[in-house]
Amino acid sequence: MRIYDIIKKKRDGMELSTEEINYFVQNYTLGNIPDYQISALLMAIYFKKMNKRETLDLTKAMINSGEKVDLSQIKGIKVDKHSTGGVGDKTTIALGPMIAACGVPFVKMSGRGLGHTGGTLDKLESIKNFNVEIKKDDFINNVNSINIAICSQTANITPADKKLYALRDVTATVENISLIASSIMSKKLAIGSDAIVLDVKVGSGAFMKDLESAIVLAKEMVDIGTGFGRETVAVLTNMDEPLGYSVGNALEVKEAIDTLLGNGPKDFVQICMALGSKLLVLAGKCPNEINAKCLLNEVIKNRKAYNKLIELTKFQGGDTRFIENTELLPKARYVLEVNSEEEGYIKSINAEEVGKCALLLGAGREVKESQIDLAAGIVLNKKVGNEVSKGDVLAYIHSNDESKAKEVKKILKNVIQISDKKVMPKKLIFGEVNKEGVRLF
Amino acid sequence: MRIYDIIKKKRDGMELSTEEINYFVQNYTLGNIPDYQISALLMAIYFKKMNKRETLDLTKAMINSGEKVDLSQIKGIKVDKHSTGGVGDKTTIALGPMIAACGVPFVKMSGRGLGHTGGTLDKLESIKNFNVEIKKDDFINNVNSINIAICSQTANITPADKKLYALRDVTATVENISLIASSIMSKKLAIGSDAIVLDVKVGSGAFMKDLESAIVLAKEMVDIGTGFGRETVAVLTNMDEPLGYSVGNALEVKEAIDTLLGNGPKDFVQICMALGSKLLVLAGKCPNEINAKCLLNEVIKNRKAYNKLIELTKFQGGDTRFIENTELLPKARYVLEVNSEEEGYIKSINAEEVGKCALLLGAGREVKESQIDLAAGIVLNKKVGNEVSKGDVLAYIHSNDESKAKEVKKILKNVIQISDKKVMPKKLIFGEVNKEGVRLF
Repeated sequence: MRIYDIIKKKRDGMELSTEEINYFVQNYTLGNIPDYQISALLMAIYFKKMNKRETLDLTKAMINSGEKVDLSQIKGIKVDKHSTGGVGDKTTIALGPMIAACGVPFVKMSGRGLGHTGGTLDKLESIKNFNVEIKKDDFINNVNSINIAICSQTANITPADKKLYALRDVTATVENISLIASSIMSKKLAIGSDAIVLDVKVGSGAFMKDLESAIVLAKEMVDIGTGFGRETVAVLTNMDEPLGYSVGNALEVKEAIDTLLGNGPKDFVQICMALGSKLLVLAGKCPNEINAKCLLNEVIKNRKAYNKLIELTKFQGGDTRFIENTELLPKARYVLEVNSEEEGYIKSINAEEVGKCALLLGAGREVKESQIDLAAGIVLNKKVGNEVSKGDVLAYIHSNDESKAKEVKKILKNVIQISDKKVMPKKLIFGEVNKEGVRLF
Repeated sequence: MRIYDIIKKKRDGMELSTEEINYFVQNYTLGNIPDYQISALLMAIYFKKMNKRETLDLTKAMINSGEKVDLSQIKGIKVDKHSTGGVGDKTTIALGPMIAACGVPFVKMSGRGLGHTGGTLDKLESIKNFNVEIKKDDFINNVNSINIAICSQTANITPADKKLYALRDVTATVENISLIASSIMSKKLAIGSDAIVLDVKVGSGAFMKDLESAIVLAKEMVDIGTGFGRETVAVLTNMDEPLGYSVGNALEVKEAIDTLLGNGPKDFVQICMALGSKLLVLAGKCPNEINAKCLLNEVIKNRKAYNKLIELTKFQGGDTRFIENTELLPKARYVLEVNSEEEGYIKSINAEEVGKCALLLGAGREVKESQIDLAAGIVLNKKVGNEVSKGDVLAYIHSNDESKAKEVKKILKNVIQISDKKVMPKKLIFGEVNKEGVRLF
């Protein structure tokens, strides 16, 4: 088998065999095939696409390129959730403890990645001494003891995906549904959870800008999950404005804690309920979603979910006082107000632009090596549809760099758009995709 | 400017600006852009193509990446010819001396490249001590003295093309008209000849398998040449069966010498006349092609062309006794006959397959480092349309390796196909393309 022939075959629009896919994934991972041949192949895949069978084979080959995490020692039906990424998305930090508090094992291995803010791992590190680098045995023991563990992906999971993604990122070959779906799903499937709920974000702050393409991606991922015999459901959710009010690592942890205390932002609570109820039903904990939502409400009211976060923090070495008193979380030196210069109704708060502002303040990584400022970020004071008067605070900018804060203030004034007419907020949850098909609400 | 944006732009089907083309060509040549980004770009170009403006800019950028050969010190209108490559194509060795003998300066810088047999340079090296690595000053002096010089391309001509071609070759991105045309033409245009005749081969043994795609390539090349203000004409010629009878380095030199002595194969002579008459008209030597063909005939009859080859050999240090007595040229240890097992008419002799046989015998290079066997090759004894009886010799296999010769004998028996019905040979010259358009005969 020659990589040249594989490139040519895909270039000419033909289907690659299982052997050919295994060949290029294995040999690329081993360093036997140079980047320049794989990037040409990726561009050919971009144009000629992969069918379901090829996508499934690619996912399989990427999983087989590395270590698999066997969770069979964990009792019960283990559930995992994954978000395609958005601005202000602190869902795991609130939802994980909620699910665990309901008695369902919640297993979560995350990467750090790049983004407007840090990932879940970075956010959790706002809690002093919270250790995300726990060993596999501890991970399993923790889930068996308290139903939850959140840790860093081991270096050996899907090394093929890591290499391929890094190459796609610099060769304009990211935007292909098969490549995106197999990349996400290989990482999920390498970890032996029983059911997976995918939060596929749609809108300005998401990877998928429109509902149509989000549905295509969701279908592809559900097909892969189903192809591997895992219960997989995707929920399509709005990411036109940031989720909740807070964007930034420590700021989002605080909002997640508030949510577990029953004081969460309406949209964020709704997302947690939608995803959480799916997870509980898939785990066989509840017969239906209404029932599941009631249970989720209960574990918030009776503080079981909040206590679960404290328990999780304790088990992973973190200082629980940071949960009990969020004033201890990293704080920015400067907090600037952004005030409204008009009166009217909030028309839009472009999530991507808010994300870029957070990045500018140091809340995220521009390159892999960037140091994250855990305190930096933005706290919105208004959401789309809210009425505002002249002088009202639209947002607070948290920054350790005053000049950057001023720069962001200027930008945010344009990002938060105000209309003189009443504005109806957009739908928050568009629908779901499961193995039966698409259901839009 | 970022290469990522250039890849994405082309991927999305947009036109690249002159600055963007210059940027990627320059920086790739300098080693500032890695192979893996350029191979992705090349695959995007493969799918989304380049328009005339982009192709011209790419050619220009590749020319500007290296040294240009100024021929202004050579008196008269300098002509150059280029073949897109075929099997048994020894045209330069016969045609060059013919043109020079007519009093028109013939300048030829060749690469060695890969192929079924060696290139013109390798073939000429069958003549003992023939030096193709002469210096630029000697090259110019020689043309001024005897109207002809044939030498190796300097290492500094179009380094961008060398790098790009090497990458295309291993990433299945060769087959794009803009890339092919700009690659050929940049090398031609970097050398300051006044008029260029392109021999665009069509058929089984050529790069372009059908007339349609050959016309597209010819048009693109003529457009580029014209865009640079050079008189450029392409002749479309048949390469379904090998040109002439001989395939192999020393064997082809002998056939070229025979041709200069008036004993050339009919098809080969016809090609030399067609290309030669174009060159003489473009050089302003003859008012029309009929007149030019008469002059070409004359320099063969009066031995001026033959003597020109002797003169060329002498000027480039070669042993002229090898021309005067072709028995001195490298000879293979074994000569095997391929005999006909049927009677009838030769239906086809697939040029590509004959080429592969020559390569198998060692006449060409499989990889850049391969050593060429100058003596090895095939001499056909029949051409398409010829009548054959049982036992007739169809071809002679010249080899220094008896077992390889036997292997080739088996293959050739299937390659040379015989019909029981009369066979009309195909047209040899299909037409021409010049700046006015396409003219098919």
